[in-house]
Amino acid sequence: MDTIDRPPLSPDVADRFRALLPPGRALAAPEDLAPFLREERGLYEGEAALVLRPSSVEEVSAILRLASETRTPVVPQGGNTGLVGGQTPRSRSEVVIALGLLDRIRDVDPVGRTMTVDAGVVLSRIQAAADEAGLLFPLSLGSEGSCQIGGNLSSNAGGTGVLAYGNTRDLCLGVEAVLPSGEIFHGLRRLKKDNRGYDIRNLLIGAEGTLGIVTGAVLKLFPKPAGREVAYVGLASPDDALRLLKRAEAAAGTQLTAFEIMPRIGIEFTVRHTQGARDPLAEPHAWYVLLEISSGGSAAEARALMETVLEGGFEGGEIEDAAVARSIADARTFWRMREEMSWAQKPEGGSIKHDVSVPVALVPRFLREADEAVARTIPGARVVSFGHLGDGNIHYNVSQPVGADKVAFLARWRELNEVVHAIVADLGGSFSAEHGIGQLKRDELARTKPPVEMELMRGIKRLFDPYQIMNPGKLI
Amino acid sequence: MDTIDRPPLSPDVADRFRALLPPGRALAAPEDLAPFLREERGLYEGEAALVLRPSSVEEVSAILRLASETRTPVVPQGGNTGLVGGQTPRSRSEVVIALGLLDRIRDVDPVGRTMTVDAGVVLSRIQAAADEAGLLFPLSLGSEGSCQIGGNLSSNAGGTGVLAYGNTRDLCLGVEAVLPSGEIFHGLRRLKKDNRGYDIRNLLIGAEGTLGIVTGAVLKLFPKPAGREVAYVGLASPDDALRLLKRAEAAAGTQLTAFEIMPRIGIEFTVRHTQGARDPLAEPHAWYVLLEISSGGSAAEARALMETVLEGGFEGGEIEDAAVARSIADARTFWRMREEMSWAQKPEGGSIKHDVSVPVALVPRFLREADEAVARTIPGARVVSFGHLGDGNIHYNVSQPVGADKVAFLARWRELNEVVHAIVADLGGSFSAEHGIGQLKRDELARTKPPVEMELMRGIKRLFDPYQIMNPGKLI
Repeated sequence: MDTIDRPPLSPDVADRFRALLPPGRALAAPEDLAPFLREERGLYEGEAALVLRPSSVEEVSAILRLASETRTPVVPQGGNTGLVGGQTPRSRSEVVIALGLLDRIRDVDPVGRTMTVDAGVVLSRIQAAADEAGLLFPLSLGSEGSCQIGGNLSSNAGGTGVLAYGNTRDLCLGVEAVLPSGEIFHGLRRLKKDNRGYDIRNLLIGAEGTLGIVTGAVLKLFPKPAGREVAYVGLASPDDALRLLKRAEAAAGTQLTAFEIMPRIGIEFTVRHTQGARDPLAEPHAWYVLLEISSGGSAAEARALMETVLEGGFEGGEIEDAAVARSIADARTFWRMREEMSWAQKPEGGSIKHDVSVPVALVPRFLREADEAVARTIPGARVVSFGHLGDGNIHYNVSQPVGADKVAFLARWRELNEVVHAIVADLGGSFSAEHGIGQLKRDELARTKPPVEMELMRGIKRLFDPYQIMNPGKLI
Repeated sequence: MDTIDRPPLSPDVADRFRALLPPGRALAAPEDLAPFLREERGLYEGEAALVLRPSSVEEVSAILRLASETRTPVVPQGGNTGLVGGQTPRSRSEVVIALGLLDRIRDVDPVGRTMTVDAGVVLSRIQAAADEAGLLFPLSLGSEGSCQIGGNLSSNAGGTGVLAYGNTRDLCLGVEAVLPSGEIFHGLRRLKKDNRGYDIRNLLIGAEGTLGIVTGAVLKLFPKPAGREVAYVGLASPDDALRLLKRAEAAAGTQLTAFEIMPRIGIEFTVRHTQGARDPLAEPHAWYVLLEISSGGSAAEARALMETVLEGGFEGGEIEDAAVARSIADARTFWRMREEMSWAQKPEGGSIKHDVSVPVALVPRFLREADEAVARTIPGARVVSFGHLGDGNIHYNVSQPVGADKVAFLARWRELNEVVHAIVADLGGSFSAEHGIGQLKRDELARTKPPVEMELMRGIKRLFDPYQIMNPGKLI
């Protein structure tokens, strides 16, 4: 039976959960629960019986032991910044386990370049602690001021640093997790090489809390770049952006640390709706690229590499205009154009989102075909397609036609998804590049995954979670 | 029942396997089988009923379907270069599936920087094909002229490029595999971001053929460095080597592409037993480091970085002497000292091997403690501990005392393993860093893995391979 149809948690069982924690760490009053039930896009408004706030792995273990015994469905939650409803509870039969009090940075090893952290540590704190140690933790995304590393791991978050450093999965050497039985998976290994059996760590990463609860992790740190250069480039087309990407990779190699693409309309929305935002270029261009080169060697080298790339791009004809950041303030201004682009769509009315990836070389073709299909499906709809060209990952968002009815437009969410995702599938792409599956794409996953893979996934789910208590209704 | 105790494959079933392939591709004569039954260290001498040589994924699928139906145990084999007996069949009940005829490079995508290959392609061919496309496939290891990428993936091979580029797992975007049922897992995705459900790819990678047979892969390619500098450094101790590593990482960042450590005795063995090998330094040193810096920017930059590192190392007191390669021939000579070190131990008699990793910062302590323990256990034994300091991965090999009896010395293999591995475990390390488990370390894995992890591994094995036909007696 879907847990959404189950009766509410009984008062007896609720009391037993409460008794596992110190006073004040089990929330039940509606006003206390509220922040844990809403997600930021407003797509899901949840319900739950309790929110439990453990502060240690042992408390998480005790909670899951009791949940297994009483068959109580649980929903792990980090910073509540997920975009697919994976963290939102669905009924009063469910208990939210909020990880925010597991917030210790357990260890920083500057020689082995690792940091061991609790799952509830906020990403920006991890970035700052790495910086203090003279190192870099390169995971960077819009919600870094409030998302927690446990959620980043559980959703295998992406962000703007993936081009050079990989997804969250690639930034993690080991995880500690509590399994549904309450048993602890002690996988906090600080090893760069460890070939002892099946890769259970990578099953827990990206499982969106459906196989267990990540409670700690060993993260990889990187040498801090000696110099960083940021350029904001105007171009005529995604094809030109791709040519510039190839040029930048050839010149800068692994020192190319960001390559983001933005359309003119996104720049207009951002300038219109973000206080203090301004377009760094004098004339409008059809497309823009935010390009970052970070040199391990020196600031001069980063500058020289950036000059090589931009000069080549002008000569090769793919760049129409470019501005190079002359100060940290400049760099912030440039980055802001990219970072505010998600939010700047809100005041323009309803927006139907896609988080897709295709092979990098096929991005221009994807954009052409998807734009045509959207124009056919909803004439007047305004496509704001931006994101991580270097990873083939585009946030293909569609704003409602000017003056259209928001509710009527948003009612076509699934229909438009199908149109766009069909093109993605045709190109060998993914309809979930970096945001995960959650509630939003669960049916689509089941419908589109090859049956042999769905069977293996279901088998893995049964193996880890025989009573199906972990984050029901999400992912699988 | 362990398949090793099973009766030989029946002639009827053997005929059914033969009928699945064109003539000449099922081998049964002892002289034809022989090369597939021996592994290069001579630790295992196997037996098998048949060797099948499919040349397509469909043929592999047909073989596994029949194997499932007839409950015939199968042993996948690539280049037969594994060091733990994972590829060696164990009885005449077993059928070897040799993947060497699946040898197509299916696609090279220079923009997305990917290469799609069959499992049987030899690693050096992949390196060459990447080079021709102006790109780099950075996996590099001693057996690269004969090992196959399917084996590299199945054992998650390491090698000398891990420091900058990661293990084989990190170099792969997607795999295609045939499951024990004969069903094909179509996972040849060329996507840098794809969060659609559980990470089955990483279960198949590193599973040593116990969950299915990898038949193809999408590999990541990297920009080719513009300049490469190699230095051969003499030092007093592993502590000094660690200081130099930290210095090199701080200066070169991700452009530090190799950092290998070697002891004096290893240099002596190599010079003594390798034709044309010579020590590049005039005076002997207790320890040596092979240091490689590859610049994405330019040859001049690589030179400048190398100068910075070496000057700093001399001033800081951790370097006693250093030679920088002035030509490609020099660089080959330097690398040869490292590459021949495994082989150069053979003429010195028996050698008991360990492939261990510890957190990088703990390598000097590990070496001190292990050397003391070995001296106590087998006085006169000669430790040749070398390898990938940057990854914390040491090939801690122990050559017999001069004049000792080889057979008697090798009889103490397990005893010495236990002594060394106890120290590794104490330091939070792994007794299988990059060579895998195979037959050699299977008992040790079962004995030392936490029961909760062994249970999950067994469950995963049952899920993928309900009839337990895949590479029995290996890993799990």
